[in-house]
Amino acid sequence: MLPWKLSAGEALSLIRAGKLSSVELIESCLERCAEREPATRAFVRLADRDRWQADATAASDRPLAGLPIAVKDVIDTADLVTEYGSPIWAGYRPVADAAVVSLSRAAGAVVFGKTVTTAFATMTPGPTTNPHNHAHTPGGSSSGSAAAVAYGAVPLALGTQTAGSLIRPAAFCGVVAYKPTFGTIHRAGMKVMSESLDTIGVFAREVGDCALFISAISGRDLGDPARKLDRAPRLGVTLGPAAELATPAMRQRLDEVIAAAARAGAEIVEIALPQETDEAFGRHVDVMYGESLQALAWERREHGDRLAEALCRMLDNAAERGPEAVRLGRRAFAAARAAMTAVFDGIDAILTPSAPGEAPLGLAFTGDPSFNQLWTALHGPCVSIPAGTGPLGLPLGVQVVGPVDRDRDTLAIAAWLAAAIS
Amino acid sequence: MLPWKLSAGEALSLIRAGKLSSVELIESCLERCAEREPATRAFVRLADRDRWQADATAASDRPLAGLPIAVKDVIDTADLVTEYGSPIWAGYRPVADAAVVSLSRAAGAVVFGKTVTTAFATMTPGPTTNPHNHAHTPGGSSSGSAAAVAYGAVPLALGTQTAGSLIRPAAFCGVVAYKPTFGTIHRAGMKVMSESLDTIGVFAREVGDCALFISAISGRDLGDPARKLDRAPRLGVTLGPAAELATPAMRQRLDEVIAAAARAGAEIVEIALPQETDEAFGRHVDVMYGESLQALAWERREHGDRLAEALCRMLDNAAERGPEAVRLGRRAFAAARAAMTAVFDGIDAILTPSAPGEAPLGLAFTGDPSFNQLWTALHGPCVSIPAGTGPLGLPLGVQVVGPVDRDRDTLAIAAWLAAAIS
Repeated sequence: MLPWKLSAGEALSLIRAGKLSSVELIESCLERCAEREPATRAFVRLADRDRWQADATAASDRPLAGLPIAVKDVIDTADLVTEYGSPIWAGYRPVADAAVVSLSRAAGAVVFGKTVTTAFATMTPGPTTNPHNHAHTPGGSSSGSAAAVAYGAVPLALGTQTAGSLIRPAAFCGVVAYKPTFGTIHRAGMKVMSESLDTIGVFAREVGDCALFISAISGRDLGDPARKLDRAPRLGVTLGPAAELATPAMRQRLDEVIAAAARAGAEIVEIALPQETDEAFGRHVDVMYGESLQALAWERREHGDRLAEALCRMLDNAAERGPEAVRLGRRAFAAARAAMTAVFDGIDAILTPSAPGEAPLGLAFTGDPSFNQLWTALHGPCVSIPAGTGPLGLPLGVQVVGPVDRDRDTLAIAAWLAAAIS
Repeated sequence: MLPWKLSAGEALSLIRAGKLSSVELIESCLERCAEREPATRAFVRLADRDRWQADATAASDRPLAGLPIAVKDVIDTADLVTEYGSPIWAGYRPVADAAVVSLSRAAGAVVFGKTVTTAFATMTPGPTTNPHNHAHTPGGSSSGSAAAVAYGAVPLALGTQTAGSLIRPAAFCGVVAYKPTFGTIHRAGMKVMSESLDTIGVFAREVGDCALFISAISGRDLGDPARKLDRAPRLGVTLGPAAELATPAMRQRLDEVIAAAARAGAEIVEIALPQETDEAFGRHVDVMYGESLQALAWERREHGDRLAEALCRMLDNAAERGPEAVRLGRRAFAAARAAMTAVFDGIDAILTPSAPGEAPLGLAFTGDPSFNQLWTALHGPCVSIPAGTGPLGLPLGVQVVGPVDRDRDTLAIAAWLAAAIS
């Protein structure tokens, strides 16, 4: 098999067995990149050869042994210009690596390149296309990281989620994404927008690879990627607070996933979400943009003319709604988290769509985050797995959502489900 | 009166009445600074005259009308080198102002200078002395901001608190500090250590000035500084989880403050803290250093030899205790917050010491944060006010601690109490 096709776990086994080197793997990834990148445009820049070769060689005795990773360009890298998807930051070269990058390098990952993000991880998209059909959006805001993993440039890529910026592009691009419990990875050196919501996470082609990577950089025990569940899970099924936005294909696919899970032994429970979740869902935008309004104070004051018009509108609206809207939003989040305890008492995890359906046509709109906002606000782990295709032949995704700090179980259930529906 | 002696509120009134200009005020502050700075060493650098004069002139029609502020050097300023108190960052010139600086400038504040911080706002002190006795510590980590306000270089200064870095130096230097509810001011552009704890706040010589400043930059209505309380408050009195560390002078002074408050009409309730607060208090260090371990990943990996030895020890210890200690700590904080709801149901605010007593002798140790850690973990507002002096003739302080988001009431109670004991 060509090395770029390997999962992170497979590549790591071969490297450890002396059958593959990190440099060979990265060379293969670069060949794949040369082939698919021109039409996909996932990267804003690639690492210098001198740097990645040195890193790959030095990493051989580390846990990740020189696996290449892509890094969303809202995350600082000292060796690579970091522009946050905005012309305001064109050419910016940070002094330091972000915490997550430094932790990744310390664990033996090699930075392969920086990936396209929407401007400040909000709405205005970059040039990335969906690798399954270049006329469609890859989703966002972690557009490039999702697309790069999907077409095979890298086995692992870092992204971030404030609304649905990991889970939605993963679904649209047909890859796995894992948003850990809020606070698992420190955001130092990331361009944080919403302090209450922004979460660093990872894309991969296998659930186990996500566990492997985040375990290695966080020190948390997220379980052996190859471990089987002791028993089939109890899954709480819901379309979530925006059920009416699910496409017929998504609904049908979810039903098929449920049926497959049941056949594999899962206990399926239709759950009703407590009323508090509706308010949390409804107030997500207030918290996200109310906090972003402060986060972008410098850009707005010094370079307001170079902020995208759509973002300006959201920030102006947040300014008008004022800090009280943020306060009420945070309160609603806390109330929803408390109310969900009882829901999770009866189930192991929630099974719900990752997005309304397939990736929308065109590159101007990265898609609707309505199937993600509530789960982000709840702070628990979310794992999106590919779940077949829709009528356009584009990927669909479902996500497994767990309670705060139950990341290990949530990943194991997602891996179990992926096997059950494959 | 010499302009540097004015409170922020007084200066603002005179500026608005056309009886004082921002430039005159800043000139007076510079004179005071020239006189007292050599022995106090509160500043790492002062703003260029060209810059502050231009800012002062441009700010005349803004809410803060050109009031000078000092900024703790863990907070980025685009016009002034920002070094986080560490040789690793010597000469670092950020591209952008931190959110709090940009919000301050937008509100009409003028950056007067950057103040000494302990290294990364942790333990290793800078050169600042206590303005009341140069042989004593000013406290930390916001050492320079507290001292600068105390000796009259500025009426307002920004600081940050992870354990006791606002409230303790305020007490030691005989000034007011206000730590707002967690999340009131976005930390973008601040060197964040503990994402669960770090809070931006302010020093002033009057409680009302704190409300004035944070209202202007956050948009929150924190009340009219001159407003009187409708009724005397119900105050819950406790020495907190580290009662045994309170000096006799501090205990006696707290009793006198209680007596004065009672004479002024306050209802005094001796409160018992729920058991959950003991665990939160005990686990504060785990969360602080466990999160700092990730925050400083780049410094530790690339420049470990230039991290202070004491900090390295704390980080090594955190690495040994692992991420599970952080998780348990955050859980303990959440449990303590929930348990405190019942305590706050019966009172308006808590009255408790700001520090064990007077500022310790020497500059090597900035003092014990045991009277601050729990309250920081609880995320509610804390306001420290000066409360006389101890046997060494150095200031003592007491703090008013309110429930989350009751900042307005907490500030009003602190102002009421300051009047009652004056």
